[in-house]
Amino acid sequence: MVKTETISIETRGNGHMVDVTGRVAEFVKNAGLAEGVVIVFTPGATGAVTTIEFESGLEQDFARLMEELAPQQREYAHNARWGDGNGHSHIRASLLGPSLAVPVLDGRPILGTWQQIIVLDFDAHPRSRKVVFQAIGE
Amino acid sequence: MVKTETISIETRGNGHMVDVTGRVAEFVKNAGLAEGVVIVFTPGATGAVTTIEFESGLEQDFARLMEELAPQQREYAHNARWGDGNGHSHIRASLLGPSLAVPVLDGRPILGTWQQIIVLDFDAHPRSRKVVFQAIGE
Amino acid sequence: MVKTETISIETRGNGHMVDVTGRVAEFVKNAGLAEGVVIVFTPGATGAVTTIEFESGLEQDFARLMEELAPQQREYAHNARWGDGNGHSHIRASLLGPSLAVPVLDGRPILGTWQQIIVLDFDAHPRSRKVVFQAIGE
Repeated sequence: MVKTETISIETRGNGHMVDVTGRVAEFVKNAGLAEGVVIVFTPGATGAVTTIEFESGLEQDFARLMEELAPQQREYAHNARWGDGNGHSHIRASLLGPSLAVPVLDGRPILGTWQQIIVLDFDAHPRSRKVVFQAIGE
Repeated sequence: MVKTETISIETRGNGHMVDVTGRVAEFVKNAGLAEGVVIVFTPGATGAVTTIEFESGLEQDFARLMEELAPQQREYAHNARWGDGNGHSHIRASLLGPSLAVPVLDGRPILGTWQQIIVLDFDAHPRSRKVVFQAIGE
Repeated sequence: MVKTETISIETRGNGHMVDVTGRVAEFVKNAGLAEGVVIVFTPGATGAVTTIEFESGLEQDFARLMEELAPQQREYAHNARWGDGNGHSHIRASLLGPSLAVPVLDGRPILGTWQQIIVLDFDAHPRSRKVVFQAIGE
């Protein structure tokens, strides 16, 4: 069984973390997936997916890490060439990656108690962003 | 065909790398997966999964990278808020990600000769940790 | 349905990014996968897979990030032990990871307009590298 759904989320950009755990669980339930995998994927070159304990302290700590790795105020060859101003957004997204595969058992994604699935929007401005959920299994 | 198994591993925490390659190969064999994918996933917000040439030199080199990216002795908003002392553990885990998908062919994960599958425990103390293996395919 | 194919690519090493988007799309089409997932995997401990807007500006920006995180000219315990000279290659590869899962719908990988699938070869010299494509679904 394969089911695929695309949702839209509104983000503030600039590394905004959106907790999609509830929506993933709901998708898995509606898809009728008992055992298998759910894939969470961001189409687009400035978004990423990972897991975190979603609380305001780690939001700040993770944002600081991203800013230290790829500062916004810095020269980027991407910006020089395209005038985009989002070179930092792109390399942060490529470092983290756009895809996450979470095993599902008994109709539920297997996550730790304090582990949430997040979509990060590193783009330099607020925007609407597509996120793809896909259920594969039985 | 979908099969899912959860194992426990004992770790020393603090970035301890556990080589699970042999157990993944054994799981794939026991599951009877000839062709498909095996997913390795750590439930929990301070663990991660990736591959490496598992030898003591790279254990040190990778640990140094993690310490440089997210030093243990530093202020974290997570620690200030929750008194956990493991802010560095969380952001290292989120950076690497909790999931790995490895193709299987002829009943074996397709890995390079010197490429091992590792689970990293970034938590700040020794612990027991669950790891999920999932086989999907034929 | 599961189909697996291994291709070879020639790389310059040293972080060379190879855009495999067209080959992945072609593989999905030839496999007859209408809906499901395509996995792109690099066997080998010095390769990685992610997505990026593939243009020369970001090639430079991403290469700078990698060099800052794990400089080539530095002491590595791996190099001291094995005389390989590619300690930096290994830890860059482990940080990014060797695997990517991209959802497929209507016979096509769901990617953003400016989002390409890349294989990175961090090894310290030009080489031939295997890349595995795997289609799972219907």
